[in-house]
Amino acid sequence: MTSSIFTGLSAFPLTPLHDDHVDERAFTGLIERLAAAGVDSITALGSTGSYAYLTPEERARVAKLAVEHAGSTPVFVGVGGLRTSHVLAHIDAAEQAGAAGVLLAPMTYQALTADDVFELYRTVTEHTELPVIVYDNPGTTHFTFTIDLYARVAELPGIASIKIPGVPTNPEEAREHVAGIRAVVPEHVTIGVSGDAFAATGLNAGCEAWYSVIGGTLPEPALTITRAAQAGRTSEAVAESERLAPLWGLFTEFGGSLRVTAAIAEHLGLAPHQCLPLPIQGLTEAQRARVAQVVDELDLA
Amino acid sequence: MTSSIFTGLSAFPLTPLHDDHVDERAFTGLIERLAAAGVDSITALGSTGSYAYLTPEERARVAKLAVEHAGSTPVFVGVGGLRTSHVLAHIDAAEQAGAAGVLLAPMTYQALTADDVFELYRTVTEHTELPVIVYDNPGTTHFTFTIDLYARVAELPGIASIKIPGVPTNPEEAREHVAGIRAVVPEHVTIGVSGDAFAATGLNAGCEAWYSVIGGTLPEPALTITRAAQAGRTSEAVAESERLAPLWGLFTEFGGSLRVTAAIAEHLGLAPHQCLPLPIQGLTEAQRARVAQVVDELDLA
Repeated sequence: MTSSIFTGLSAFPLTPLHDDHVDERAFTGLIERLAAAGVDSITALGSTGSYAYLTPEERARVAKLAVEHAGSTPVFVGVGGLRTSHVLAHIDAAEQAGAAGVLLAPMTYQALTADDVFELYRTVTEHTELPVIVYDNPGTTHFTFTIDLYARVAELPGIASIKIPGVPTNPEEAREHVAGIRAVVPEHVTIGVSGDAFAATGLNAGCEAWYSVIGGTLPEPALTITRAAQAGRTSEAVAESERLAPLWGLFTEFGGSLRVTAAIAEHLGLAPHQCLPLPIQGLTEAQRARVAQVVDELDLA
Repeated sequence: MTSSIFTGLSAFPLTPLHDDHVDERAFTGLIERLAAAGVDSITALGSTGSYAYLTPEERARVAKLAVEHAGSTPVFVGVGGLRTSHVLAHIDAAEQAGAAGVLLAPMTYQALTADDVFELYRTVTEHTELPVIVYDNPGTTHFTFTIDLYARVAELPGIASIKIPGVPTNPEEAREHVAGIRAVVPEHVTIGVSGDAFAATGLNAGCEAWYSVIGGTLPEPALTITRAAQAGRTSEAVAESERLAPLWGLFTEFGGSLRVTAAIAEHLGLAPHQCLPLPIQGLTEAQRARVAQVVDELDLA
């Protein structure tokens, strides 16, 4: 176990919109809720925080609000963009906001080569002193990292962590998968699992961090899983994850974690109705009723 | 055959960058070259024109320059964006520039549902009087239109054309494919093929337009294919496309048409070196040498 701040539970809050403007009160409410719950870090403007949909000005403002309301909890800020120069501008804004690190996914419109992506991270790590989390999220970027590219990028000075997109469900295979990455990246670079349904397995398999969607809205169950895994109580972590299986089921059934998490936040009064950026419409009324039922049954409110 | 301006060859110019700024002289040079060649329309800020990478201000300026330098050639402008409100702002800028139509792809970061995409087009067609080209480009948007969604969207007032992503290579299957779309969309909505290697087959199969990458840099061979197909000289269109097979081969081998087309424009002095937005690095020197060889062998200069 390392003393890096890139360990434990990193909670990814939504950036709720209202009438196409950032709802600053809802956003700062989420941040304060996370800090109070004792998450290990907050990652603002992750995919869950809709970074890709916001203007540079909105992103700078959200980064600033996150740091101001997080107290002593470290705040990481998503700085992805389609153009390298835009990424650098987002990094400058994150620095000015007081971020403790930045999260960077290789967003694509035209497909990128491995060399394109390596040069992006090289340029970024030359540009900033802030530690960088490599954000491997093929579901949104449609870019697939190889183990070789993990190794090349992780060698760059300033790379602090790699956010991987889930692990095999079989615990033995998960352990081999994480060990395979661990073998090629420097020791100071932490490996963090994402894909909430995989978190317990990933943490038990040796991931030092969980970059968590649900932790940004429902920090308590995410902390239960994280603290159990960190203490070596592997079956307790698995049991809590299995208790949440109806939630993971909704993620699969309703097209991913974002719409479901937004519906939960809206149901709990943490975000205004239809808080996602259009054209993302959010769940239907029938789907929202199913979400509310699961929230009640699992006592998540 | 219809009298719509959404027929024939629509040429997609690059938006060349130099040191991360739009090279206005290179861009207007490309526009004047296309107008002089007699293309039927120019689509500025298509995928080939790097719309997804440019700021709103750059896009407004490029749209204005395109209209100013196109003479009497109609100019369509790509208005795609990840957020609906941003799309509407791009449309306002295209209107102010004097565009004759707009091209809209359902860009994604989070995956969109068919209803999300329908509502996007509904919102857009309510917002503008300009005719709209539906841009189905799953290679960049990762959104896949169904025939049903073509039908729903094409019913909206203001939809003028659908840009489809290629056709089957077999001429009979291509004809069935285009007829299948034609059967569900109103007569005034033209069907345009894209994917340059499929253009001759697509036009011969009944597509009324070719939305062409290579036509934006090398209009003459694209016009040869288009005029032959329009006149019913199907084998002449196929022969010219087959003559260009080494070029289509490079598109496949070097990861798509954009990098190859940029290398051609750079080789011919129509764009500055490394004219694509970083992190897209463009072709390697060895790849560029292959491109130059094909350009020379096919007498494309």
